[in-house]
Amino acid sequence: MTAFTRSGGRAADQLRPVRITRGFTIHAEGSVLIEFGQTRVLCTASVEEKVPPHKKGSGEGWVTAEYGMLPRATHTRSSREAAKGKQTGRTQEIQRLIGRSMRAVFDLAALGERTIHLDCDVLQADGGTRTAAITGAFVAAQDAVDKLIASGALAASPIKGHVAAISVGIVEGTPLLDLEYTEDSACDTDMNVVMTGAGHFVEVQGTAEGVAFTREEMNILLGLAEKGIGELVTLQKQALLES
Amino acid sequence: MTAFTRSGGRAADQLRPVRITRGFTIHAEGSVLIEFGQTRVLCTASVEEKVPPHKKGSGEGWVTAEYGMLPRATHTRSSREAAKGKQTGRTQEIQRLIGRSMRAVFDLAALGERTIHLDCDVLQADGGTRTAAITGAFVAAQDAVDKLIASGALAASPIKGHVAAISVGIVEGTPLLDLEYTEDSACDTDMNVVMTGAGHFVEVQGTAEGVAFTREEMNILLGLAEKGIGELVTLQKQALLES
Amino acid sequence: MTAFTRSGGRAADQLRPVRITRGFTIHAEGSVLIEFGQTRVLCTASVEEKVPPHKKGSGEGWVTAEYGMLPRATHTRSSREAAKGKQTGRTQEIQRLIGRSMRAVFDLAALGERTIHLDCDVLQADGGTRTAAITGAFVAAQDAVDKLIASGALAASPIKGHVAAISVGIVEGTPLLDLEYTEDSACDTDMNVVMTGAGHFVEVQGTAEGVAFTREEMNILLGLAEKGIGELVTLQKQALLES
Amino acid sequence: MTAFTRSGGRAADQLRPVRITRGFTIHAEGSVLIEFGQTRVLCTASVEEKVPPHKKGSGEGWVTAEYGMLPRATHTRSSREAAKGKQTGRTQEIQRLIGRSMRAVFDLAALGERTIHLDCDVLQADGGTRTAAITGAFVAAQDAVDKLIASGALAASPIKGHVAAISVGIVEGTPLLDLEYTEDSACDTDMNVVMTGAGHFVEVQGTAEGVAFTREEMNILLGLAEKGIGELVTLQKQALLES
Amino acid sequence: MTAFTRSGGRAADQLRPVRITRGFTIHAEGSVLIEFGQTRVLCTASVEEKVPPHKKGSGEGWVTAEYGMLPRATHTRSSREAAKGKQTGRTQEIQRLIGRSMRAVFDLAALGERTIHLDCDVLQADGGTRTAAITGAFVAAQDAVDKLIASGALAASPIKGHVAAISVGIVEGTPLLDLEYTEDSACDTDMNVVMTGAGHFVEVQGTAEGVAFTREEMNILLGLAEKGIGELVTLQKQALLES
Amino acid sequence: MTAFTRSGGRAADQLRPVRITRGFTIHAEGSVLIEFGQTRVLCTASVEEKVPPHKKGSGEGWVTAEYGMLPRATHTRSSREAAKGKQTGRTQEIQRLIGRSMRAVFDLAALGERTIHLDCDVLQADGGTRTAAITGAFVAAQDAVDKLIASGALAASPIKGHVAAISVGIVEGTPLLDLEYTEDSACDTDMNVVMTGAGHFVEVQGTAEGVAFTREEMNILLGLAEKGIGELVTLQKQALLES
Repeated sequence: MTAFTRSGGRAADQLRPVRITRGFTIHAEGSVLIEFGQTRVLCTASVEEKVPPHKKGSGEGWVTAEYGMLPRATHTRSSREAAKGKQTGRTQEIQRLIGRSMRAVFDLAALGERTIHLDCDVLQADGGTRTAAITGAFVAAQDAVDKLIASGALAASPIKGHVAAISVGIVEGTPLLDLEYTEDSACDTDMNVVMTGAGHFVEVQGTAEGVAFTREEMNILLGLAEKGIGELVTLQKQALLES
Repeated sequence: MTAFTRSGGRAADQLRPVRITRGFTIHAEGSVLIEFGQTRVLCTASVEEKVPPHKKGSGEGWVTAEYGMLPRATHTRSSREAAKGKQTGRTQEIQRLIGRSMRAVFDLAALGERTIHLDCDVLQADGGTRTAAITGAFVAAQDAVDKLIASGALAASPIKGHVAAISVGIVEGTPLLDLEYTEDSACDTDMNVVMTGAGHFVEVQGTAEGVAFTREEMNILLGLAEKGIGELVTLQKQALLES
Repeated sequence: MTAFTRSGGRAADQLRPVRITRGFTIHAEGSVLIEFGQTRVLCTASVEEKVPPHKKGSGEGWVTAEYGMLPRATHTRSSREAAKGKQTGRTQEIQRLIGRSMRAVFDLAALGERTIHLDCDVLQADGGTRTAAITGAFVAAQDAVDKLIASGALAASPIKGHVAAISVGIVEGTPLLDLEYTEDSACDTDMNVVMTGAGHFVEVQGTAEGVAFTREEMNILLGLAEKGIGELVTLQKQALLES
Repeated sequence: MTAFTRSGGRAADQLRPVRITRGFTIHAEGSVLIEFGQTRVLCTASVEEKVPPHKKGSGEGWVTAEYGMLPRATHTRSSREAAKGKQTGRTQEIQRLIGRSMRAVFDLAALGERTIHLDCDVLQADGGTRTAAITGAFVAAQDAVDKLIASGALAASPIKGHVAAISVGIVEGTPLLDLEYTEDSACDTDMNVVMTGAGHFVEVQGTAEGVAFTREEMNILLGLAEKGIGELVTLQKQALLES
Repeated sequence: MTAFTRSGGRAADQLRPVRITRGFTIHAEGSVLIEFGQTRVLCTASVEEKVPPHKKGSGEGWVTAEYGMLPRATHTRSSREAAKGKQTGRTQEIQRLIGRSMRAVFDLAALGERTIHLDCDVLQADGGTRTAAITGAFVAAQDAVDKLIASGALAASPIKGHVAAISVGIVEGTPLLDLEYTEDSACDTDMNVVMTGAGHFVEVQGTAEGVAFTREEMNILLGLAEKGIGELVTLQKQALLES
Repeated sequence: MTAFTRSGGRAADQLRPVRITRGFTIHAEGSVLIEFGQTRVLCTASVEEKVPPHKKGSGEGWVTAEYGMLPRATHTRSSREAAKGKQTGRTQEIQRLIGRSMRAVFDLAALGERTIHLDCDVLQADGGTRTAAITGAFVAAQDAVDKLIASGALAASPIKGHVAAISVGIVEGTPLLDLEYTEDSACDTDMNVVMTGAGHFVEVQGTAEGVAFTREEMNILLGLAEKGIGELVTLQKQALLES
């Protein structure tokens, strides 16, 4: 079988160019524009000195996420969720995924009774918005935590390690890392993987869009994801070194 | 490490008693009560001779699912979604999963321009409601399709094979098949797996509730799921043989 | 005029077979499946140790009801209220009726500052769902109260007497007790009657669907209802004797 | 037992002063301000030359009603339903009752494929708003029909007879006609009765607010209602004679 | 250019007949029916002895407004906002305008921690409903404040001066005061002006419906508005002198 | 009176640095990032080849706008409208203003039966977001129209001239052009002015936040606005010259 040819001559196991811009907006405690090729997501971290009802009095904090897409982030305009009066099932699914992924690397007791809100808003979409959101939200959260430490509100970091995410999939029989929109639309199997900096899995969400996939295909895809997430964690670290 | 002891002396790789009752209610084209131990889900299949807007004029049909839980299906009463005026993110996530799983084994062109609605309502919950729903909905869909064939509306079945689902997870270090509620609450890793009768994957959704999981743990869990789903498919076949 | 012939040779003043199954589900303080022929309603009673705002600090408790119908409880699938985001006027009317009927036999001061939620969910509909719901909800409420007494939370029962309900109507000139769906659709006058075990009226809701009805017709219908409700109260008592 | 003393020396079987002002506003095809003592309801009838989906192509028309209460129609301000974003169960119950009552005297086939919308808005409330609304809406509907006949849109009236409504109840043991607010709040039994000009029943809705009521009490209340509705029909006729 | 001819021979700078009826309904602390020609708005003022969250503990009160239109206040029936489940953007815009206008003449600290709710409901619309609402709401608010003073709840009035409003516009080149519906529909420029009794501006909202307007046209319109509002303030004072 | 000192030594009649970046995102027919100092708004223009119901068959097109603010565009996080399920009154007011302003310079007949959607999303807020949105949306609309002409869909431009907007206000007695957030919070009078390239008014919305303003003050503010908008139109033209 001939391998699928990617745009720009990208290799099957190659990430798109990733750019992480910290301090993209001025008000938020953490504000990161993350770009996976043409996909651009603004991730802000906001600290609130209170917790939702289910954490009140627990001594623990909370980390939560919301996700949105500007109406014309996509090829054809999609209707504005605020105007329609409800978030789609897809939006809710994604923001729940981001929230769980962030909490996987947070020690909520060490955070204390405060909430970190992560808002991930897609300015431009070209596939992989949820994985870019997770990868960027981590950097925004780190910036917010660093401000809490700098201000003396926290003595030590409640963050236990890095977390990042990537999509993998099989297109025309070829396993690919970091699908862009045209690849995502054509793929048989689509998998979003979230891993820690230590190389362990936080979330694996694989879906057969066309034919069901085999255990062997799954193993190949997980291997691609491990490679890509390792590179993303390195990029997160580089971005966090800049002041 | 000592293995976790399950209620009723169940083995780690053992399903709860599964009962599939066809024709549980009289109006629906397919109506199945499925029980995984104390978990009881009523799955009905309704045939509608029209399709949603995105399929109109395509010559293809549609298969979709909705999921609900009676307010007192759970240990403490949860509020009624109809009264609150919206479905939770969890509900939407589950019903999207059920819909995708069913469509994975349907040839929508062979179905023709009609819709099969699968309604999965949890009468009693004890863990694994979404996997029971998928497993039961397949049987209800099969019954509905058989009626379409019997009536002459369809010449051949648009169903390409079986689909069933099970949860697996790691509790206190022990990998377990088919988690009940107390196990689900205590587990570190929780994975829902949907497979075809041919043993291929349709969906894999793994989540680290506590510590992130390793590639090796994932392999063990997938193995357990393969075993369980194989047994569920056998049970589906037995149930469908009864008249 | 020749009398209307009922399905199964049922007499005009005869109830359908009524079955009351206590303990139908395991989590609720009271859980009753009630069947009036093919109509099947699951009624659960849930005790909550707090009251709604309008009762806070009053020393009194509250009894309230919610009603729902599974989408395919009916001949053709009706849309799911939770998905549409609102309850129909019919649903609200029925759940208000059930709530008022239950409160008619409760001494709210004797209940203390707690709430009993009665959830009545129709699994299968064939006419008379609201009257079955009231009749079954009473048994579920009684079970819940008995648990409160057994646990020492209550010293004496706040329940002052039985309450049950039945529909009556005139079809093709014949007054009938306990209408099933085909009768209900054809009737000129439809009346739902709620009475206490002492034979007094709690609610009378009569509606002329076709021609308006006379005082004499109303008297005949009320007589039928008295007979039917007397029998239902006896069946409630028998069901409550079983352990 | 000493009889209950009514405000203004009103007899137990006496209506409050009733005023029916036609043409209260200028735009509607029928516009009636009806007053039962201090209760004031504006009833407008609007003709629309189309029907709702369930009547499309049937050759029949439709008559429907909506009910609202201005926020400060009551002793203490109630919140505005439009601002809260939903109608209460009480509002829906009342507008369904008004709609059914109007349809009871309409020949929908004779109306042709058009809709009459009856909007009943309470400007001031002092008990009996739903019965005033029904009584006034009939007059507004008659005016709208007369305009359709005058314009040649209809050859003959689709209205088969009068319809009017009144409340009756038992307060401190005394059966009363046409309850005002303070009586309504104090009553044990509250019944709303809708009748045709021919003296037949369209709706009977009796509710025991305190103790359940007997068959005998019900008979007395129905007698009072018959008397009151007879008088209301006379007042409707007088109002319709004025030009 | 020939001047536009107004209905009833009204001069370009002439108000429609204005009627202010205090005590139009009995329950509210202030209740005013205001009529600008055929436009009729019922304005009630309700005093509530608490404040919204953003004022809690501030020692200050709050003044707020809600606006509604009965469905058949207009030439063709508009749908009921309560039934649709949301207020239109126009409604929200108007009620925010009324609220700001009222607060412009209130000393919120002198009001104390209580809220005055102004409900402005349009019974009949013929242009200028928002300006009639502001002009009438002031009178209702004054009546409510007078009651608070009479009861001893307030020692001095928190009202700093009058406020009233009028619309002006340019129709077929002619600047007009107080537009009625047909003029409003035909106008190129439409301006709503809110002023204090001292002749200062509270709100100026000018909109070019057709061609953009010049600075000179704006000056002419503001002059017309000053004249009209001066007359409205005189009418408010006369109305408040009656007991 | 000493004049108010502005941040960065800005003169009272001086705009903040304005930057207009065309082609900010890739999918929309027009995509402009507009910055008024720290205020940053992304304005996209999307062409849809159909019109809303009220324009169907009219031969005319439609131009409409939606407005949103990212949750952390502001100093403290505001809740996400999509999650709350409704747009605030402020949001609706602003998007209606943008829509009217755009339509003021469009010949809808010349546009043909198509819709231009303008989405204005605030990435960062520091006062003046609605005026930046209008000024940027015009440039995005111009780009979209140019694409329609280039593709042959339109023969001539339906745009009749420029439109731009600015805020003006009086802070501590000093009239200021283009208020930033801290000035806006402190101002007594706040006015948003929308003008055409020809120097005529499209919208004037002045509000007295504190004391009412005089005719003279209004004149000074309108003069400031004329100056600022003249400069903005020049900046729009320069931006549109770049390719």
